[in-house]
Amino acid sequence: MKIIEYNFNLFPWYFMKQVIVVRTDLEMSKGKLAVQVAHASVIAAFEAYNNYYEWFKEWWESGQKKIVLRVPSEKELLELYEKAQRRCLPISLVVDAGLTELPAGTITALAIGPAPDDKIDEITGHLKTL
Amino acid sequence: MKIIEYNFNLFPWYFMKQVIVVRTDLEMSKGKLAVQVAHASVIAAFEAYNNYYEWFKEWWESGQKKIVLRVPSEKELLELYEKAQRRCLPISLVVDAGLTELPAGTITALAIGPAPDDKIDEITGHLKTL
Repeated sequence: MKIIEYNFNLFPWYFMKQVIVVRTDLEMSKGKLAVQVAHASVIAAFEAYNNYYEWFKEWWESGQKKIVLRVPSEKELLELYEKAQRRCLPISLVVDAGLTELPAGTITALAIGPAPDDKIDEITGHLKTL
Repeated sequence: MKIIEYNFNLFPWYFMKQVIVVRTDLEMSKGKLAVQVAHASVIAAFEAYNNYYEWFKEWWESGQKKIVLRVPSEKELLELYEKAQRRCLPISLVVDAGLTELPAGTITALAIGPAPDDKIDEITGHLKTL
């Protein structure tokens, strides 16, 4: 146990995180935006739980770090989605059902991870936080 | 399968939802608030997955309805938490680690459910959406 902790300190890039990327070109209320982030987060967390359990467990036990980032368009969101998919990371893309503020089928958010910091940063490292 | 769908239409109160209650007296950025909502949502979803699987499954398959509600103080958030706990609903209370905007130990959000609509409405039916 001591050795494992020691390694984590030596190799901080092994820390796990989840990023959730949202579109800022949609006019969403604070509550609507928070729901989109939660949708994305929950689905990707279960994806990791089922298929990347070691990453999930490490993330869960280390405080479930989540970061919300922003992109200005659907196009950029989909580019990130495809990159993350090609690298086989746990991901989820939220498509709104259109019951409230947005037209049905609007793509609102993308979650990547939980996964190691460096694998996520390769894809979203250039983005700003919301 | 047809019968089950029919029943759901006849008894809409059997639908599942998750509500996430946030404090409006804290000055959180949009991103910070969304992260708190996601923390609460993910933890309560896994709580339901582990201990209330039927509710979880129904919620998951019906679109994972989530609603963000607001309270003006920690006191009211804790009252809701205790009520939901007494009724044995899946819940999670988010205590911020204090790494960014808030003092460590700040209680920011509460998720209740996934659980049947009526059981949640008994506790949070009077609250407004964010």
